[in-house]
Amino acid sequence: MTQTPKAPAFAPTFARRMDGMQASEIRELLKLIEKPGVVSFAGGIPDPTLFPQNEIRAAYDRVLSDPVRAGRALQYSTSEGDGDLRAWIVDYMAAKGTICSIDNILITNGSQQGLEFLGRLFLSPGDTALVAAPTYLGALQAFSACQPHYETLRLSDTNLNAEVYTAETAARGGRTGFAYVVPEFANPTGETMTEVERLRLIELAAELDAPIIEDSPYSELRYEGVAPTIIQSLDIARSGGIEASRVIHCGSFSKVFTPGLRIGWVCAATPVIQKLTLIKQASDLNASRLNQMVVHELASTMFDEQVAKARESYVRKRDAMLGALAQHMPEGVTWSKPEGGMFIWMVLPEGFDAAELLPGAVEEAGATYVPGEAFFADRSGPNTLRLSYSLPSVEDIEAGIARLGALLRQTLS
Amino acid sequence: MTQTPKAPAFAPTFARRMDGMQASEIRELLKLIEKPGVVSFAGGIPDPTLFPQNEIRAAYDRVLSDPVRAGRALQYSTSEGDGDLRAWIVDYMAAKGTICSIDNILITNGSQQGLEFLGRLFLSPGDTALVAAPTYLGALQAFSACQPHYETLRLSDTNLNAEVYTAETAARGGRTGFAYVVPEFANPTGETMTEVERLRLIELAAELDAPIIEDSPYSELRYEGVAPTIIQSLDIARSGGIEASRVIHCGSFSKVFTPGLRIGWVCAATPVIQKLTLIKQASDLNASRLNQMVVHELASTMFDEQVAKARESYVRKRDAMLGALAQHMPEGVTWSKPEGGMFIWMVLPEGFDAAELLPGAVEEAGATYVPGEAFFADRSGPNTLRLSYSLPSVEDIEAGIARLGALLRQTLS
Repeated sequence: MTQTPKAPAFAPTFARRMDGMQASEIRELLKLIEKPGVVSFAGGIPDPTLFPQNEIRAAYDRVLSDPVRAGRALQYSTSEGDGDLRAWIVDYMAAKGTICSIDNILITNGSQQGLEFLGRLFLSPGDTALVAAPTYLGALQAFSACQPHYETLRLSDTNLNAEVYTAETAARGGRTGFAYVVPEFANPTGETMTEVERLRLIELAAELDAPIIEDSPYSELRYEGVAPTIIQSLDIARSGGIEASRVIHCGSFSKVFTPGLRIGWVCAATPVIQKLTLIKQASDLNASRLNQMVVHELASTMFDEQVAKARESYVRKRDAMLGALAQHMPEGVTWSKPEGGMFIWMVLPEGFDAAELLPGAVEEAGATYVPGEAFFADRSGPNTLRLSYSLPSVEDIEAGIARLGALLRQTLS
Repeated sequence: MTQTPKAPAFAPTFARRMDGMQASEIRELLKLIEKPGVVSFAGGIPDPTLFPQNEIRAAYDRVLSDPVRAGRALQYSTSEGDGDLRAWIVDYMAAKGTICSIDNILITNGSQQGLEFLGRLFLSPGDTALVAAPTYLGALQAFSACQPHYETLRLSDTNLNAEVYTAETAARGGRTGFAYVVPEFANPTGETMTEVERLRLIELAAELDAPIIEDSPYSELRYEGVAPTIIQSLDIARSGGIEASRVIHCGSFSKVFTPGLRIGWVCAATPVIQKLTLIKQASDLNASRLNQMVVHELASTMFDEQVAKARESYVRKRDAMLGALAQHMPEGVTWSKPEGGMFIWMVLPEGFDAAELLPGAVEEAGATYVPGEAFFADRSGPNTLRLSYSLPSVEDIEAGIARLGALLRQTLS
């Protein structure tokens, strides 16, 4: 038998914007999670045992049992999103200090879609995106398709002012597209912006005449301390109202209920929401109305209860990890002490490389983490790493950190 | 009481790509649907009485009753999509003549998201998108954010060859990004490409070295005649395999089952799927795993049955509309005779303007349609309009077309 000659592969030319898009290291790392016996501090995803499975099942059943509601749930719907869910979010935002109407709310497929839309809305190629270093990797991925230049937001450096940013941006022929922050229990650091930092950010953004993106998926997961006022609310107090505010707030139901329904939202001045709605319509017409109606059922009946349940579980895990770190980590290793969320940020002594240490951590300590450099737009921070305590059990956290501590003690000595 | 001075509104500068984005006329028109007593031939959305509500409810119940499956359904998942659903689609595509593996399938939020991703993947600003005139409005909206130049695909004009397109595109400094077609029961014309046209398109695309986007949401809704081979399969026969094929096939479960779960797919060579997966990850991480699992339950248990049910209902509506048109339309008005799908395309005598006639149609004939110019990239075709028979009842179709015919008879005389 003669072999059929292999056909030449289709090798298309992609658009220029694709040059900046790369696969996520976290994604590649998630494959390691599956290894039996390895404790994953890498994932940073919610604990599935907390998902209110029965209540979600009952909510689908309620919506789909009523022929009229089912017909609406299963049909195409408006790009802005379900009116009842948007009304619930209006009340939720009001409790945070943002007085708005449903015209200020767009429903998105999780807050990730909100970020990606905001990149497209504000970033022409070459424009500057001001981001923390480190910052949420998914935001960098969302924005990178718009070919921005990343500049580090340095709010604790009082010497820095708008002129510095503006001069650098203008030199490249671009504008400042926006400043992006995760103000509560940030991914990856676990840290929370102080009110002083929030006010400084508002001033800086006003001087730059740029919007602020306040990405707030973890804010309900506070285990201690008092929540600072959200940046949007601080700006509204200063500017006079939601329509005058330059702050765009992104929220999510993924960390409280489940990421499986893919429902989040953006709250902003109506001209911003109107443009985002056009993007939503062109992108995927509308988020699943059925899932929106189910989220509304859940949010309006058991939001506080579910938040309490999640807090109660995660605080024990955070405490277990902080306790184990204090007990097992060698001198020279430092880490953040988050008041909430899912993440602890670790800094190794200078000269150590968390990415290089990872294979050893998996093989010898049976534990994974995410090397910190993935969270820096400029790929700096080789001696940093992100630990997440949301997924493993308290026992696995204690054992995994003990093994990781022993390995680091050995490596550092 | 003194009035509080109104705060100046936040007036951000948007990215340049937003200049090309406009609100959809269809969307504005959908608001007219709600008027009591007005028959809508505008919508072009599936008949909600055909949604398998009970089976969908049972499928959610089955997935969410099993704690292991529920945990997986409600968690973050891979951006490519659920393996079981992708495997079902592999079998489905094989039956259409496309032999592929799950690595050739990406799950999207309806086929609309596939189109938007493909725009971003292939169109740098100034590149050419070859589209039919008229074509699907949602595709124009999806592509327009990438600032392409639209060129009309003229497959019936045998004088046209690749040089003509290439010369025009090169003169603008761009490339041909792709050719986009809806080969079966096209939105808005209802027409189906012949095999000769399909082969001519494949030749043209090969000469241009450009991909072909085959958007096929309506293909299951065939009421008579024999389905031509899909373009992807024709190209595979010629090129030697899916990896050698330049055809990207977009499919959807929205027209057979329901648009409410927002599940569609893209089938293409793996390098294309890998890049699209990066875009998916950056855009919204993954489509709802729960909804994907429910669609898999439906597809693997009742696809053929549901297709038969939809065909049986829509063919009666199509026949009612074609019959009423033949009976009531005055001389000089012509229309397409679709073998399937949801749309009939009507051409009024030259000099008449379907957009101008619309308010009268609503007020006097109690019937809406979509003026055809929305479907032309260059806004031509003022004397055309799209009628959809999918939503109204047979009785409303007959009465509405009779009234529209009387109005046109009066207008044209």
